Amino acid sequence: MYSSLNTNGNAAAFETGPVSGRFAAVYSEVQNSRIDHALPLPSVLRNPFKVVEGPPSSAAGNPDEIAKLFPNLFGQPSAMLVPNEADSLRSDLKLKIGVVLSGGQAPGDYLQDRAKGSILYGFRGGPAGIMKCKYIELNADYIYPYRNQGGFDMICSGRDKIETPEQFKQAEETAVKLDLDGLVVIGGDDSNTNACLLAENFRGKNLKTRVIGCPKTIDGDLKCKEVPTSFGFDTACKIYAEMIGNVMIDARSTGKYYHFVRLMGRAASHITLECALQTQPNITIIGEEVAAKKQTLKNVTDYMVDVICKRAELGYNYGVILIPEGLIDFIPEVQQLIAELNEILAHDVVDEDGIWKKKLTNQSLKLFEFLPQAIQEQLMLERDPHGNVQVAKIETEKMLIQMVETELEKRKQEGSYKGHFKGQSHFFGYEGRCGLPTNFDASYCYALGYGAAALLHSGKTGLISSVGNLGAPVEEWTVGGTALTSLMDVERRHGKFKPVIKKAMVELEGAPFKKFASVREDWALKNCYISPGPIQFVGPSSNAVSHTLLLELGAQA
Amino acid sequence: MYSSLNTNGNAAAFETGPVSGRFAAVYSEVQNSRIDHALPLPSVLRNPFKVVEGPPSSAAGNPDEIAKLFPNLFGQPSAMLVPNEADSLRSDLKLKIGVVLSGGQAPGDYLQDRAKGSILYGFRGGPAGIMKCKYIELNADYIYPYRNQGGFDMICSGRDKIETPEQFKQAEETAVKLDLDGLVVIGGDDSNTNACLLAENFRGKNLKTRVIGCPKTIDGDLKCKEVPTSFGFDTACKIYAEMIGNVMIDARSTGKYYHFVRLMGRAASHITLECALQTQPNITIIGEEVAAKKQTLKNVTDYMVDVICKRAELGYNYGVILIPEGLIDFIPEVQQLIAELNEILAHDVVDEDGIWKKKLTNQSLKLFEFLPQAIQEQLMLERDPHGNVQVAKIETEKMLIQMVETELEKRKQEGSYKGHFKGQSHFFGYEGRCGLPTNFDASYCYALGYGAAALLHSGKTGLISSVGNLGAPVEEWTVGGTALTSLMDVERRHGKFKPVIKKAMVELEGAPFKKFASVREDWALKNCYISPGPIQFVGPSSNAVSHTLLLELGAQA
Repeated sequence: MYSSLNTNGNAAAFETGPVSGRFAAVYSEVQNSRIDHALPLPSVLRNPFKVVEGPPSSAAGNPDEIAKLFPNLFGQPSAMLVPNEADSLRSDLKLKIGVVLSGGQAPGDYLQDRAKGSILYGFRGGPAGIMKCKYIELNADYIYPYRNQGGFDMICSGRDKIETPEQFKQAEETAVKLDLDGLVVIGGDDSNTNACLLAENFRGKNLKTRVIGCPKTIDGDLKCKEVPTSFGFDTACKIYAEMIGNVMIDARSTGKYYHFVRLMGRAASHITLECALQTQPNITIIGEEVAAKKQTLKNVTDYMVDVICKRAELGYNYGVILIPEGLIDFIPEVQQLIAELNEILAHDVVDEDGIWKKKLTNQSLKLFEFLPQAIQEQLMLERDPHGNVQVAKIETEKMLIQMVETELEKRKQEGSYKGHFKGQSHFFGYEGRCGLPTNFDASYCYALGYGAAALLHSGKTGLISSVGNLGAPVEEWTVGGTALTSLMDVERRHGKFKPVIKKAMVELEGAPFKKFASVREDWALKNCYISPGPIQFVGPSSNAVSHTLLLELGAQA
Repeated sequence: MYSSLNTNGNAAAFETGPVSGRFAAVYSEVQNSRIDHALPLPSVLRNPFKVVEGPPSSAAGNPDEIAKLFPNLFGQPSAMLVPNEADSLRSDLKLKIGVVLSGGQAPGDYLQDRAKGSILYGFRGGPAGIMKCKYIELNADYIYPYRNQGGFDMICSGRDKIETPEQFKQAEETAVKLDLDGLVVIGGDDSNTNACLLAENFRGKNLKTRVIGCPKTIDGDLKCKEVPTSFGFDTACKIYAEMIGNVMIDARSTGKYYHFVRLMGRAASHITLECALQTQPNITIIGEEVAAKKQTLKNVTDYMVDVICKRAELGYNYGVILIPEGLIDFIPEVQQLIAELNEILAHDVVDEDGIWKKKLTNQSLKLFEFLPQAIQEQLMLERDPHGNVQVAKIETEKMLIQMVETELEKRKQEGSYKGHFKGQSHFFGYEGRCGLPTNFDASYCYALGYGAAALLHSGKTGLISSVGNLGAPVEEWTVGGTALTSLMDVERRHGKFKPVIKKAMVELEGAPFKKFASVREDWALKNCYISPGPIQFVGPSSNAVSHTLLLELGAQA
């Protein structure tokens, strides 16, 4: 046991708890059927292949700074697996590979290694597992029950980062102690940035341990030309879309509710956009558009109220509205208000007479008074340990319902609205992160893992596993690796440059948003609802690909 | 248009809105595949049959009063369809049949009539549609897009009741005007009570219009020996169980959240029990048990906290807890507090110093002070138009999280708890009412509708369509009708006896609860989570039947 390493609750679970393996697990019929579901592999992985390299790479921004931060890795070419007459890699090479899950959950599974006799270690509880050398050996029997199941409970995940010199040293010690040939880091933008730093560090220290990243996040915000999507996004969106479709039919059946559905995805609105394309709701708010148009909370409310009024004239007193989790983070005036509140609350006594409010700027005061009473109180009362206002705790969907109610009441008084309004709030989040992966995600993840092992096997480091041509049948998918440094830019923090993989935001000029924008007026007033139904593993729709991916591929072609 | 009939918002939608039919609807691939999904029929309905009668029936309670309330119907025998050499019913008989959906949504579909050339009217917006003679003619083309789709948007539903003499008169006028041979009422306990009153009234007036009920409610609380379940229950539970299973894997992956999941179902806890049997959570609260054991809110909280503490000792700082929507309605002390608050709030000024609290009984004061601050405020501030406390608005899952937090903090101070607790709240409701029906619900509903038409065809009235032997393949299901009066008891309201079909509550001596009770201790401390996955329409688990039904059938056999 590692009792001296007990620094957080997450880790503590592994020290004192029973083995978390699923050996004794009871499975549902569908789970059982998925375990033995045979996954297709890109044909390049099924036959002898060799690894070829492309031209040198640069960075997503500030290449000079990235070059300084990654002196050993910067400029690496991409790698691509291509068919070969005979396997170019030594099949008798026994590899020791570690794998770590990092960040939030996403439905995925299974890494497989081509080199027989190799050892696979799973670091437990995320990056902390590397630093603390907490691992289990993953053999075929141990992995078997997790095949195609979704969830990260095999080795769990964690959100620690490997950042300080001391932490890097711990990671090195683990790599040396386990004699690791390779490490596969599975996660989102932060995790892959960390993977690249580890790769740079290991190479700088002349360690043999190579590091390959894999794109995993339901948010869909880790992508680029070579990495068209991250695994988990497809499954999560289809689960949310199932629920939204059900709520739509309910809305139309009762005819008396507006359902405000907030969807997980704080930084980018990809999930919300994809769910909109799948289900065609009446109103969809895309955070990136709100930010680009510098919209205010009042603008967003007015847009909703305008549609609701028009629908009332058509006789529809119901509807479905999608809102991204991070909506208020996209609204500049809200950010301003929060900043001012934090400042005031840190220094002043909040008097009941509201004299403190005079310290707010005019714009912020106006916004504060526009907020529903309950939200005002929440902002003032619920603060984090640093005394800061907790924006993440605000239930945006409930706030919007109240603001829409207030505005509709006003219009009713003015005579411009004669309808009936009842809001119902929903938050679809955790239930989408750990579903059984769709056929697409299971196959994609399998190819990514297989590809990552092939890259390690061929001696690559600092790449992210890249599977492409995803619109084609799995057999025709391409497999390779992309230099992680080529995805990077720098951000200035505390006077220092820090490397970051920029989150891929919804592009307003991208095909998915443009498609949405071209039809949303129709969706607003007519009822074009589509109910995608539950994810199917066999039969109709079982091999469907997300709209976002298809539209992006179509735009590229 | 029926502009003079515009009395409620729900109805208004039909008067001014476009036709709500799904002719122009865009369907998802799964929806499309379901439209043409061929449903099996019990073999007795596929071949010539005749209707045979059983012995005279009585009532569920107070037969003398029921006999007085239903002089024309009381004592009717059950009807059973049995194979016959030739069809006993005139196949050239053209029937005019009305159908109405009543109450909350449930996934179901489609009534089919054996007598070719008959006319089917759909009354729009529930029972109000009968009273106001608002209907559409449902022909094969109109119905086609709704096959196997779930949702009530074809003719919508409504919660009006036909109660007063004037309302009965309106219904009579509609029956005469449309020359109705029959009326099929699809709904829960209230709707079927209403169906029986209509049947009694029509027969008393010597109208030819016969009335047959069909059991529809996701709550699962309309059932008896002859009617083993209601349609919608199977689909709703499987949708909720999918979500719960996902949340379970998420809980186990992150290892740091207790998910409190409140499930729809206010009166009875069938949904919660079924979902527990499908997913095996750590803690499940069954309202009927809480009521039977006269538990207090403190008892419920302590039970949760005890399990959480024991789990923490095992190293588990996460878990999944199921709570029925109507939990607090089952707790006697809460009912008492609410009654006292309503009384006080109606007559007294609520002073800030809390002097008003002295009017509470000791027990209620203690409970009130035990409630989290936010709930106290909600009780005092949010009141319905009559000034009454709004119990239904209390988010029980959030309240319990706060109470559990407080108690755990206490135990931490005492040294008896060393874990970490973070609660996440969920409410699964609307997304389960309108999903695509499972194969079971689609087949069951089809047989119920077909059976209802056969009963009308053979001249029956005041029966509820009854399909039995549901554990066997569909071909072997039995089809018949049960006297609605035999399900009835009386309640005394405003000094009068009112007939009611008693809601079927979770029976603590019934097989489903006993099964649950025998394993819940294991589920509490071990992690026996099962993830049922999304509803499948083909392949593994696509023909699964609910645990509740199977256990009840097993106990009968």
